[in-house]
Amino acid sequence: MSTTTAHAEIASFTPYPIKHLPINIQLGEESLIVEWDHGHQSEYHYLWLRDNCHCSECIASLTREQVFEICDVPLTIKPIEAYISDDNRIIIQWDFEQHLSQYHPGWLLSHCYSESALNDKKLDSKVWDKERIQGELPNTQYKKVLENDDELLSWLKDLRDYGLALVTQVDTQTNTLVKVANRISFIRETNFGTIFNVQAKADANSTAYTNLRLPLHTDLPTRELQPGLQFLHCLINDATGGESIFVDGFKIAEHMREHYPEDFASLSAIPMSFYNKDKETDYRFRGTAIVTDSNGKIVEVRLANFLRGPIDVPSHQTMALYKAYRRFISLTRETKFQHFQRLNQGDLIVFDNRRVLHARNAFDLKAGRRHLQGCYIDRDELLSRIRVLERNRL
Amino acid sequence: MSTTTAHAEIASFTPYPIKHLPINIQLGEESLIVEWDHGHQSEYHYLWLRDNCHCSECIASLTREQVFEICDVPLTIKPIEAYISDDNRIIIQWDFEQHLSQYHPGWLLSHCYSESALNDKKLDSKVWDKERIQGELPNTQYKKVLENDDELLSWLKDLRDYGLALVTQVDTQTNTLVKVANRISFIRETNFGTIFNVQAKADANSTAYTNLRLPLHTDLPTRELQPGLQFLHCLINDATGGESIFVDGFKIAEHMREHYPEDFASLSAIPMSFYNKDKETDYRFRGTAIVTDSNGKIVEVRLANFLRGPIDVPSHQTMALYKAYRRFISLTRETKFQHFQRLNQGDLIVFDNRRVLHARNAFDLKAGRRHLQGCYIDRDELLSRIRVLERNRL
Repeated sequence: MSTTTAHAEIASFTPYPIKHLPINIQLGEESLIVEWDHGHQSEYHYLWLRDNCHCSECIASLTREQVFEICDVPLTIKPIEAYISDDNRIIIQWDFEQHLSQYHPGWLLSHCYSESALNDKKLDSKVWDKERIQGELPNTQYKKVLENDDELLSWLKDLRDYGLALVTQVDTQTNTLVKVANRISFIRETNFGTIFNVQAKADANSTAYTNLRLPLHTDLPTRELQPGLQFLHCLINDATGGESIFVDGFKIAEHMREHYPEDFASLSAIPMSFYNKDKETDYRFRGTAIVTDSNGKIVEVRLANFLRGPIDVPSHQTMALYKAYRRFISLTRETKFQHFQRLNQGDLIVFDNRRVLHARNAFDLKAGRRHLQGCYIDRDELLSRIRVLERNRL
Repeated sequence: MSTTTAHAEIASFTPYPIKHLPINIQLGEESLIVEWDHGHQSEYHYLWLRDNCHCSECIASLTREQVFEICDVPLTIKPIEAYISDDNRIIIQWDFEQHLSQYHPGWLLSHCYSESALNDKKLDSKVWDKERIQGELPNTQYKKVLENDDELLSWLKDLRDYGLALVTQVDTQTNTLVKVANRISFIRETNFGTIFNVQAKADANSTAYTNLRLPLHTDLPTRELQPGLQFLHCLINDATGGESIFVDGFKIAEHMREHYPEDFASLSAIPMSFYNKDKETDYRFRGTAIVTDSNGKIVEVRLANFLRGPIDVPSHQTMALYKAYRRFISLTRETKFQHFQRLNQGDLIVFDNRRVLHARNAFDLKAGRRHLQGCYIDRDELLSRIRVLERNRL
């Protein structure tokens, strides 16, 4: 079977290997039914097909962006003729402007939107408790991340799926974390700068910059888009205490959904306010502690006790919200969910800040210094990087 | 009446002037009812009051962040005693750990969460069509934005409410827009850099960098968080054509909700995919073209025809989505909604990219050069800046 790819004609950098061939087509009222050689059946609406014409009139060759607009053809556009060509493309001549479109079978099958095809494309997070992550914590070495794209890809996919991953043997010069971060993309700047130094300091404007205990939280819940990935690189840690604790917020949320469905419903529906007031900034965001997508999949948690603003929901929701919030916090305190990780010199831990809550125990600097550097990169960048690395392997 | 503010004791940089005094309190089953001297009545739940204790045990004085956690007291916590003090504070002694809390009347009233108080805090966007914005387009001068905080605040509030505002007489040296942007905050970096140059170029990876017509769109719908504010600074524009066109997406969405409720419902509920595939990046996001908040208020639009990926929703939703999408695009093409603005040398236009769709006509460089510089700043930064400027005026 041909493995011809279809770069130029489908206006994409992604190759679409031909895995199956169309063997029959039927013209329905508003859609085309395609039968494939492995028994799968796809339905493509005529508007969808016209919209996805890849000819050089419809797509600007320079930018690979669509210049055609779907509202410029009738809603009822139909084929005059449709057939499978000798080279296994589907060819359609339209009843409007006699436009001719052709569809590459690799591209077409990979964009099938049947229920089973959509289900196959869903990614499942690997949610974890203490026991699972102790056995499965993804980790690699600094040198491999920098030099080996295959190793990088594998580590990034683990990071996406587990939301937590370690790099060891990292150089302990300041700002070395930028080299790892830039293997994904640029750093997201915040009011704390591009790189932040986690050290106890006298004029702390955040508990992070003291030696106090930090309860489990996500960073910057006061921002509409919480930072996606957080990097924490340990340059030196001779202090006593200060262990990092990680909890999979998705696991807690799923546990709540199963055992305390009312509390889960409250945290998913009733917004909380988060405030970060400083001398020169005053960030506030109002959002739910648990976010689910249209399929009910948990996609985000947002929680930091020390950054909550006063609850400001209608009176009849106040107690339900408190009850649910207290439940969530209580669950995060159960040791069966908590992964302890002492960060030692040369360790770099990266986690999905919109999923994995992190905490740190109080520490004592009598025994020595403690200096971590951190930065953020958004989820968009991680997912883009994974796609590009995968594209290169197809 | 006292106008004593309450900075230190309420752990905030925002002053809370005392406008009214509590004249009576009643202890309910799970909440305290407060009557104020202007007739307003507030209900504060006991858990809420305990949660908002501002004493130095509950709030870390250095960082002004809460160290107390509400799940460490019983759900049924109640006052042993509650009264209005001689200096008009509400004092509560709790039945758990004998903790003593006191509440500043200015702070307390401003955090009332009665239905009427919550309604008063809602901000309404000033939605516009061609006629309204022609008469009301907010504008100011470069020198005023740089030098005058009151003028800046007024301009920023207009920008927040209208989603579109102009600065004139801006220096035409490259990168001058950074000076205006930094009056708000830092710039949001993207794969196009921190500052992007809008000029026709040979190796364009986006239609923006050609001389082609750009249909009405939001920038970077391929990112989970579309950039909030977009700045476009005109350094030179001697080309023929290339007029900028702006449409208030909130106006279009409201028009749809009124006249085509089914289409509005489809665009608010059925996600579309947006793809931006380039050599080194492959950004994709799936989200609805219209986003409403929990009160049904329209808070975002997301649309760029040339960045749509193939529609990938279940078959029974495909036609409804196409019908609604075509409706939206058709409405944006109606001239009654379109504001034309030719950007001349020294003009800087700023708009809410998550609300205001922008477009540009094709241009011809025979008559002269055309060079715009652009950058992005997120909504969080605008709102924070407004709060800090307002705080300084209280």
